[in-house]
Amino acid sequence: MPNQKPEWIGRRLLQEGLVRANFGNMSLRADGGFHIKRRGEFMDAAWEPVFVPFDGPVPECASTEYPVHRDIYMNSTFDAILHAHPPHAIALSLLEWELLPLDSEGRLLAPRVPVVEGEPGSVELAGSVVRGLSSSPVVIARGHGTFAAASDLLQAYILTSVVEHSSQILLMLLRRG
Amino acid sequence: MPNQKPEWIGRRLLQEGLVRANFGNMSLRADGGFHIKRRGEFMDAAWEPVFVPFDGPVPECASTEYPVHRDIYMNSTFDAILHAHPPHAIALSLLEWELLPLDSEGRLLAPRVPVVEGEPGSVELAGSVVRGLSSSPVVIARGHGTFAAASDLLQAYILTSVVEHSSQILLMLLRRG
Amino acid sequence: MPNQKPEWIGRRLLQEGLVRANFGNMSLRADGGFHIKRRGEFMDAAWEPVFVPFDGPVPECASTEYPVHRDIYMNSTFDAILHAHPPHAIALSLLEWELLPLDSEGRLLAPRVPVVEGEPGSVELAGSVVRGLSSSPVVIARGHGTFAAASDLLQAYILTSVVEHSSQILLMLLRRG
Amino acid sequence: MPNQKPEWIGRRLLQEGLVRANFGNMSLRADGGFHIKRRGEFMDAAWEPVFVPFDGPVPECASTEYPVHRDIYMNSTFDAILHAHPPHAIALSLLEWELLPLDSEGRLLAPRVPVVEGEPGSVELAGSVVRGLSSSPVVIARGHGTFAAASDLLQAYILTSVVEHSSQILLMLLRRG
Repeated sequence: MPNQKPEWIGRRLLQEGLVRANFGNMSLRADGGFHIKRRGEFMDAAWEPVFVPFDGPVPECASTEYPVHRDIYMNSTFDAILHAHPPHAIALSLLEWELLPLDSEGRLLAPRVPVVEGEPGSVELAGSVVRGLSSSPVVIARGHGTFAAASDLLQAYILTSVVEHSSQILLMLLRRG
Repeated sequence: MPNQKPEWIGRRLLQEGLVRANFGNMSLRADGGFHIKRRGEFMDAAWEPVFVPFDGPVPECASTEYPVHRDIYMNSTFDAILHAHPPHAIALSLLEWELLPLDSEGRLLAPRVPVVEGEPGSVELAGSVVRGLSSSPVVIARGHGTFAAASDLLQAYILTSVVEHSSQILLMLLRRG
Repeated sequence: MPNQKPEWIGRRLLQEGLVRANFGNMSLRADGGFHIKRRGEFMDAAWEPVFVPFDGPVPECASTEYPVHRDIYMNSTFDAILHAHPPHAIALSLLEWELLPLDSEGRLLAPRVPVVEGEPGSVELAGSVVRGLSSSPVVIARGHGTFAAASDLLQAYILTSVVEHSSQILLMLLRRG
Repeated sequence: MPNQKPEWIGRRLLQEGLVRANFGNMSLRADGGFHIKRRGEFMDAAWEPVFVPFDGPVPECASTEYPVHRDIYMNSTFDAILHAHPPHAIALSLLEWELLPLDSEGRLLAPRVPVVEGEPGSVELAGSVVRGLSSSPVVIARGHGTFAAASDLLQAYILTSVVEHSSQILLMLLRRG
């Protein structure tokens, strides 16, 4: 297996167009909380996360998306979460209520991807992402991006990439209609 | 925060498809003028800019787009300007009078991006860009490219990337019509 | 000629968008069997394949697509096989029964690319890929990806790239209809 | 100015998607002939070209596209030629008789790009490319790719990139019709 360091994953996300600029964030479960990317940091920068406890004050520099991560960890056994902004998946989320892949990788790994709602960083989004993850390891927040949850960041990255792959293929077919 | 050197920003612009070849230019405010990329230089080349004074003769080797940069600095408090050629934003600028993003990043950072007019490097373009920047930190010159103004080049790059992200998503939806 | 090591080919596949994440696999004929990528491994990771014999038990860690590779080697004289997931070719395979390129490279190197059927890793897919390869050195498994067979991995990569190039051009034209 | 070595240009061409695999070729005028990429070589490989004389036998290993390069050099004062396979320009060449850019870079550097005809490597193609280059420094061979001629490879690369940029924008607008 290749190096699974978060910055390696960040470079892959950028290379595949799954994030741009300093978009996106990722986190890893820890004792009594989780480590998450700092606000505004680039995904391929050196991994110097900030600790967010399940209870108690949250550091100012934590990614603004920390409420979603916190609610996922508190309501599941996932150990890693990756939030990305893949453009085809986002476009599709503005058209559909769920992503039903036509390609074999999507059908195998993410056969029914819910589109969920809520403003970025909000409690409402956190709740709808948690509900979505109960039926699929990856969901799309409408007009915003993907949340993938897994046992490690590598699996979360693979799920994210699969969703964009399936979305790209679906959009190519839709455009012919 | 990652390295903010102009050549690092240039590499990101190329990697994300926000510029091609030796397109685009960037500048930084200085005492009594600004430093700007040399004409024809690549965005990811070593940063060896030329100084353009607010008053007085302009060096021959300054980017041809210097009049726009000069007028922005003389009419604002921005300290950094980035001009790029993102293809989806340019295509959209030939269809619309403003970019109204549907995705959450665009709605947060650049919710109403004016499309402005004028020939590249002209006084007319300079004036319309300055007017546009009074209501949005980034504008699109019709058929030409983006001008983003900020406190540093990193923020200008992020704004540019957000506009292309939003434009790409909008065009995917438009094409279905 | 450039370095033909499998990891070099893997990097090109990723760079050209012919695979994402840890998708795809490749193999090389050997005495009495073939060496194939390990299951889940990335295409650009160090080349540490596993040996699959034509007869006898198959190691657990072999790529799940080994039945297709085995049947190709047992029914042809090809020495290298590359399976990739190029998105435009996959989209086209959901629309057409064969790819008939309009560009000159496709017309020269892969003028009539069959679209074949079968679940990933299945005996049915293996059979239909073998039949397809009797008339074209590269085929597309519907909704799944390409299988290219050649005398070495470099040629298999070139064939894969040609098919995606031709598919991209065809889809651009189809979308105008 | 950045390093203008042919392999540097080759890397840019690959990075911008102007060539794939081992597509494309480039050459430089020399005394009594020209140096051209070897057949099948990659554009970003070490520059070890082969000499093709204006008169006399042509080495077997010269790029198959040498007749077009030879006729351009014998009928012009250009010192560098670059042949690439940009997908949007190729798609457009199958729809139109000339490329009329709507973006400002295209309108400045390549305002009227002829689409010419002829089989790859043929005398017919050589003649039509030469005629096309009399009115524009870059032309598109229908369904095949671009030929850009300039005083050096850097300028030829910039022209190629401009044509793809303009074609991409035009196709985005056409698809909405």
